[in-house]
Amino acid sequence: MLIGKNERLIFTGDSVTDVGRAHPIGEGRDHSLGDGYPLFVDAIIRAWMPDHPIRVTNMGVSGYRSRDLLNGWQAECLDLLPDWVSICIGINDCWRKYDVPFQKERAIGLEEYEENLRIILDRTLPHVKGVIMCTPYYLEPNRQDRMRADMDRYSDVCRKLAAEFSLPLADFQAAFDEALEYIYPSTFTWDRIHPNPSGHMVMAKAFLKAIGFPIEKAW
Amino acid sequence: MLIGKNERLIFTGDSVTDVGRAHPIGEGRDHSLGDGYPLFVDAIIRAWMPDHPIRVTNMGVSGYRSRDLLNGWQAECLDLLPDWVSICIGINDCWRKYDVPFQKERAIGLEEYEENLRIILDRTLPHVKGVIMCTPYYLEPNRQDRMRADMDRYSDVCRKLAAEFSLPLADFQAAFDEALEYIYPSTFTWDRIHPNPSGHMVMAKAFLKAIGFPIEKAW
Amino acid sequence: MLIGKNERLIFTGDSVTDVGRAHPIGEGRDHSLGDGYPLFVDAIIRAWMPDHPIRVTNMGVSGYRSRDLLNGWQAECLDLLPDWVSICIGINDCWRKYDVPFQKERAIGLEEYEENLRIILDRTLPHVKGVIMCTPYYLEPNRQDRMRADMDRYSDVCRKLAAEFSLPLADFQAAFDEALEYIYPSTFTWDRIHPNPSGHMVMAKAFLKAIGFPIEKAW
Amino acid sequence: MLIGKNERLIFTGDSVTDVGRAHPIGEGRDHSLGDGYPLFVDAIIRAWMPDHPIRVTNMGVSGYRSRDLLNGWQAECLDLLPDWVSICIGINDCWRKYDVPFQKERAIGLEEYEENLRIILDRTLPHVKGVIMCTPYYLEPNRQDRMRADMDRYSDVCRKLAAEFSLPLADFQAAFDEALEYIYPSTFTWDRIHPNPSGHMVMAKAFLKAIGFPIEKAW
Amino acid sequence: MLIGKNERLIFTGDSVTDVGRAHPIGEGRDHSLGDGYPLFVDAIIRAWMPDHPIRVTNMGVSGYRSRDLLNGWQAECLDLLPDWVSICIGINDCWRKYDVPFQKERAIGLEEYEENLRIILDRTLPHVKGVIMCTPYYLEPNRQDRMRADMDRYSDVCRKLAAEFSLPLADFQAAFDEALEYIYPSTFTWDRIHPNPSGHMVMAKAFLKAIGFPIEKAW
Amino acid sequence: MLIGKNERLIFTGDSVTDVGRAHPIGEGRDHSLGDGYPLFVDAIIRAWMPDHPIRVTNMGVSGYRSRDLLNGWQAECLDLLPDWVSICIGINDCWRKYDVPFQKERAIGLEEYEENLRIILDRTLPHVKGVIMCTPYYLEPNRQDRMRADMDRYSDVCRKLAAEFSLPLADFQAAFDEALEYIYPSTFTWDRIHPNPSGHMVMAKAFLKAIGFPIEKAW
Amino acid sequence: MLIGKNERLIFTGDSVTDVGRAHPIGEGRDHSLGDGYPLFVDAIIRAWMPDHPIRVTNMGVSGYRSRDLLNGWQAECLDLLPDWVSICIGINDCWRKYDVPFQKERAIGLEEYEENLRIILDRTLPHVKGVIMCTPYYLEPNRQDRMRADMDRYSDVCRKLAAEFSLPLADFQAAFDEALEYIYPSTFTWDRIHPNPSGHMVMAKAFLKAIGFPIEKAW
Amino acid sequence: MLIGKNERLIFTGDSVTDVGRAHPIGEGRDHSLGDGYPLFVDAIIRAWMPDHPIRVTNMGVSGYRSRDLLNGWQAECLDLLPDWVSICIGINDCWRKYDVPFQKERAIGLEEYEENLRIILDRTLPHVKGVIMCTPYYLEPNRQDRMRADMDRYSDVCRKLAAEFSLPLADFQAAFDEALEYIYPSTFTWDRIHPNPSGHMVMAKAFLKAIGFPIEKAW
Repeated sequence: MLIGKNERLIFTGDSVTDVGRAHPIGEGRDHSLGDGYPLFVDAIIRAWMPDHPIRVTNMGVSGYRSRDLLNGWQAECLDLLPDWVSICIGINDCWRKYDVPFQKERAIGLEEYEENLRIILDRTLPHVKGVIMCTPYYLEPNRQDRMRADMDRYSDVCRKLAAEFSLPLADFQAAFDEALEYIYPSTFTWDRIHPNPSGHMVMAKAFLKAIGFPIEKAW
Repeated sequence: MLIGKNERLIFTGDSVTDVGRAHPIGEGRDHSLGDGYPLFVDAIIRAWMPDHPIRVTNMGVSGYRSRDLLNGWQAECLDLLPDWVSICIGINDCWRKYDVPFQKERAIGLEEYEENLRIILDRTLPHVKGVIMCTPYYLEPNRQDRMRADMDRYSDVCRKLAAEFSLPLADFQAAFDEALEYIYPSTFTWDRIHPNPSGHMVMAKAFLKAIGFPIEKAW
Repeated sequence: MLIGKNERLIFTGDSVTDVGRAHPIGEGRDHSLGDGYPLFVDAIIRAWMPDHPIRVTNMGVSGYRSRDLLNGWQAECLDLLPDWVSICIGINDCWRKYDVPFQKERAIGLEEYEENLRIILDRTLPHVKGVIMCTPYYLEPNRQDRMRADMDRYSDVCRKLAAEFSLPLADFQAAFDEALEYIYPSTFTWDRIHPNPSGHMVMAKAFLKAIGFPIEKAW
Repeated sequence: MLIGKNERLIFTGDSVTDVGRAHPIGEGRDHSLGDGYPLFVDAIIRAWMPDHPIRVTNMGVSGYRSRDLLNGWQAECLDLLPDWVSICIGINDCWRKYDVPFQKERAIGLEEYEENLRIILDRTLPHVKGVIMCTPYYLEPNRQDRMRADMDRYSDVCRKLAAEFSLPLADFQAAFDEALEYIYPSTFTWDRIHPNPSGHMVMAKAFLKAIGFPIEKAW
Repeated sequence: MLIGKNERLIFTGDSVTDVGRAHPIGEGRDHSLGDGYPLFVDAIIRAWMPDHPIRVTNMGVSGYRSRDLLNGWQAECLDLLPDWVSICIGINDCWRKYDVPFQKERAIGLEEYEENLRIILDRTLPHVKGVIMCTPYYLEPNRQDRMRADMDRYSDVCRKLAAEFSLPLADFQAAFDEALEYIYPSTFTWDRIHPNPSGHMVMAKAFLKAIGFPIEKAW
Repeated sequence: MLIGKNERLIFTGDSVTDVGRAHPIGEGRDHSLGDGYPLFVDAIIRAWMPDHPIRVTNMGVSGYRSRDLLNGWQAECLDLLPDWVSICIGINDCWRKYDVPFQKERAIGLEEYEENLRIILDRTLPHVKGVIMCTPYYLEPNRQDRMRADMDRYSDVCRKLAAEFSLPLADFQAAFDEALEYIYPSTFTWDRIHPNPSGHMVMAKAFLKAIGFPIEKAW
Repeated sequence: MLIGKNERLIFTGDSVTDVGRAHPIGEGRDHSLGDGYPLFVDAIIRAWMPDHPIRVTNMGVSGYRSRDLLNGWQAECLDLLPDWVSICIGINDCWRKYDVPFQKERAIGLEEYEENLRIILDRTLPHVKGVIMCTPYYLEPNRQDRMRADMDRYSDVCRKLAAEFSLPLADFQAAFDEALEYIYPSTFTWDRIHPNPSGHMVMAKAFLKAIGFPIEKAW
Repeated sequence: MLIGKNERLIFTGDSVTDVGRAHPIGEGRDHSLGDGYPLFVDAIIRAWMPDHPIRVTNMGVSGYRSRDLLNGWQAECLDLLPDWVSICIGINDCWRKYDVPFQKERAIGLEEYEENLRIILDRTLPHVKGVIMCTPYYLEPNRQDRMRADMDRYSDVCRKLAAEFSLPLADFQAAFDEALEYIYPSTFTWDRIHPNPSGHMVMAKAFLKAIGFPIEKAW
């Protein structure tokens, strides 16, 4: 597994990552990591590898877009001295075009989205052991849907950057697409964005694969 | 895996199983299964095997002892027509001797405990595909501790019955003992009974092994 | 307009009709009619035709399926002696297949749905001046979507019965389909079922057309 | 209709306009526009003209008098760059003489009222496509009533300014007077100031006429 | 004063009498009498005549009409064995015609109103030392107003019955009419029905005069 | 009566005056004056003399001692430009010796108490038409009781200053002593300090006498 | 000490005993015994004599008078099979004469008080090892005070019965009288009835002496 | 007893001392001292020695470690001018290693712990009559347990410093160890740190012995 003993992993992102984590710092006892995929990743690592302690912190903030993530990056990520950083951003950048279309200043266009991610990576890569890119997603199986098609352009930016910088990629959209072949979206999610626990486990599984978690070994 | 497609699995037990599930019936959207190992078992099965639908219901009730479980068994378990039943009971049977020692009528002795479990199994096995036995446990690494030593006698009853009736066994005490070699109890639990999410994942893992979950396959 | 002076109109249905109405009887001051299309219909009639008093009551109940509507029909509708009855039911009959697919007993199949509606109409038509049929709907523009395609079968039952009994029809699905050509679903609704105020106004408009409201006259 | 595609309309005023809108900026999802006539105007335009997107913002503040409106005008209206502004102010200017007569400094005399409105118009007209004047009103049918007679002097100022500057006028007092011929005030309002939804629809209708909304066209 | 030492006085009526009294029996410490004229009457008698103990109980119930008063009369008044009874009923009998005009069954016509009062008096007078009649009222100075004119017919019934049975009369309407010559209604009341503390003191004063309270004596 | 038409009367004091008044300024609609003797004084003047408008403001603050009153005097009294000021202070100055005897710094000795009152009077008398002195009190009939005997020394200071400056005096202690001849303290008060409504009416009566209220005239 | 190992002691009484205990049965973890003298007695016995387990239950009920105690005696005391019973009743029997003097039916006269206690003792003594009598009290040092003098007659009944039946007596009034020589009542209590923790410790000490607790031994 | 009449005793420490005390200063009426051993110590001194007034203040703060105590020492202890200071700190210094092992910066090592205590003693001893040292403790009877063994090293530091500076010592760990010979930990505490009232009484007893409280004398 990429993450070594006693190293620190910080999850960053929006409401899909936050899920009720402790504020201002998302770590500590019980549900301080929130109730989403960061909690599941942490709990699975502890249960499967009790002899491999790592420190997990969840810094996701509900409502964040890539611009907000960039603005808070120094204080909310780098100052915490992570060894590894997970980034899952972009859903709100795109969604604001479709849920509040008359407030045009609230969405972030594709170009700025890529630029924001590039600045974040430039500032981060020199200081950490690695960054895990997680794609944004939309739990809509119809790829011709306007917002799904648009969101795919944002996740493509993620994939492109992961490839360009040789970063591990947790492709949440792909993981969900696989599951959606068998499961109707409203079983997974109320609004096609915020998953229920099953949906978060799909993301946790994708993340664990991305970091090379040896799940079969300790079984 | 033991549990087939479209079959129904019901978890029964006490507060360690309940963990805030929906009442009166613990199933439905979001956190209806509570926040404990039943939720994790369900979410992992859905995320790893989206093409293998099973129906999971959590009927654990905080405070239950084996006598309470037996009293409610018809309405709270059999009437729901399960294919598989998980039983995790006995912690309160034993604990009441140690946290309210002056209220002697509240604990359940070892003999009645075994008798209650036998009646439950007799009434259940003819109607279901199988019963999974889960041992009670105490998150106390010192086996000479009075309550730990006593709890071990209750978990031994579970192990004996599982063997006698050839039932799959999720040995929660053994799973925790392994983890406690590396992790101090207060990292896992506030009061040595109620686990945090990491502790629940230890139980989920033990349960999944007991039912032959093919975790490596879909990885 | 179909509804004469001093006549009573009762709206029945599920959460889409309820929207926070007063219980047990949805009428009286302020927001007793809830915040949905029944409120808008009532307010528009009063504002446009102050000299044409009618009595409006909202008896929608969140979560109702056609079977629940039928069970409560005598007490919750006929006993209130309506002159006109509006029926908007079926969304939950169909939705339960998709949001809680493992609880198969909670959905209502197409056949029972039609049968329930026929019994309701048989019991009602002899006692009232008329029944307005409102179609169920799904705010999903992709007609190949599994749940949309299924919901269309339920709304077709509505349309068929309206034609067979010569009842006025408020085709909510058709009204939304028109609007969705210009407006993305998440602008109208959080979960593709429960509309925001704009969506409720689309329904109010369709309902007013169905009852022959002379909107241009009093302008 | 006066308001063109993609133009922004801002409602300003007091509690009669506010009605629970989102703060600090009254726009966004669901009931962000409050529950009054601005919500109804917005919902009717969207339902009748889905192909004619306009952006509606409600900036009404409970308790405002013309002096408060003037004080906040730059930040709470002009800085938001409206194309169209609706002004409905003056009720509290007059009412304070009658509900707290011993706190004489809280009412605003007729002269200052007119002066405040003139300053607002001077600062606004050069920057917008138009201003819609809405008269203050009192839901008291007896025109000899002291407060009604006084309020009429405030609404006359509105009418005079609308004529002088050739502004569209939504004469709320006149619209209510018409309705009050058929409907007793306590059906419309608890306190002769704050309308129930029917009353707000009367205002919405008057406003829509003032902006030339083509209601019959899309019917 | 009519009411002798150690005698019991029970106030009955609607929300104007209730004003937050203790339930089920409105007597005891602090604000058990509510915050209206019954509290003021009791406090003034205690403060002015500490050597003249009387027992005061407030049994007013918000929303009551004469029919409700009659229905509860045995349990809510006679069973408490009053020496004196105050009756202030009729506001809701009349008001319901004007605030919920479409729910015609909620108002009580003048004829039934008189009949209800006669039955109450017949059942009560043989068992008590006296009944004080309090007129209903409407804080509307314009006597041509439809609801005021109608309410006057109800208060006339009170006056007629007081004369016929030679009962002391607290003419609340007359007392308010006097005060309204100097004070505008909205200074006294939010909705022309429920008075503020000043309005309740007007009623307390009228009541004290009706029972011959010797206010100047103890001064 | 001392207080002329349209003059302003401000009540100052501690929790016995405050009684839940509106903050920061105790005036306006309904119970803005709190539920104590200031409310009763205001309501009686309005009910008995509707043609004699005066403006009443309650600035009492729970917990205040004479030192606190002095510290806030400019902002909380003089800046409001009163014509008349009522002062009721000293209960807490004395009580703190008896309810928190180990926190000796919280009580105010007799000497400082007199000094504080003198400074307040010096600063106030040149700017107002008059000051009404109200004595502190203790609802303890046994004059040998340690705290009662001590409180009597504080009320004597009030009486002395009233005489020295020829100010009207509302002798609350004397008024209560009279009433206590007939009524046991626990009927009037929970803790011998905070009166129930009857007790507040005793104070209101004493205050009205002090200002020469012509109660018999308008009867 | 009177109470032997593993014996059960039940406290009965009114609000002075209840003090927030668990309902329906006042025993179990943490503050199930309430925050009054029963908690202190239990905690001191456990801390001083850890090798002498006894079971303590608090069954006090706020507002109880001797009549209420008698009515509930079988279910709330005897059915719990106590070895020892503590009775502290009578405060409300007497107090109701003084705090709600107009509701004469709420107080219990001295004769019925004694009779109630005698019935309770007759029904109890045959079934238990002993009854501890606790006197009612009033935290008023002035013995000429009307309510204090009256309360003394109730406590005299307790003392008489304790002597007649040779029962241990916890003389709470005497214990408080001693302390009041040094401490002013308002340091001990808000209303001269309900003690603060110091006052409850005075009672706990008196109770411990009555049962012969060997406090010096384990010191 | 060490503490003389009218002297002030301040308790400092962490959540075990705080237990819900009043903030910012833990003194005053009722439960201002919290519900732990400081309350019990104060109440016992008052009940046993009413003629020996001392002033007790509780300044414990939940979560405090020795470093936090030192940071706040001037404002939270010395500025209050104590005669005697009680210090009970160190539980959190040690516990953080075991409940949040991945947040290594949160625990305080043994060396810094001793250093912090020495600085506190140096700054305090010149200004007070004495300091009472209370040992930290862990309610774990198994001395080989990792956290118990570690905590013993912290309490040894306390014992060493008490001896070196000749300070009275309240050895909480020793007092609990004695009691644990008879009582199982879960009877005393939920989590082996926070005691129930019985446990707090064990600490109160140990503290009273340390200050030479003459418990047998006043018995």
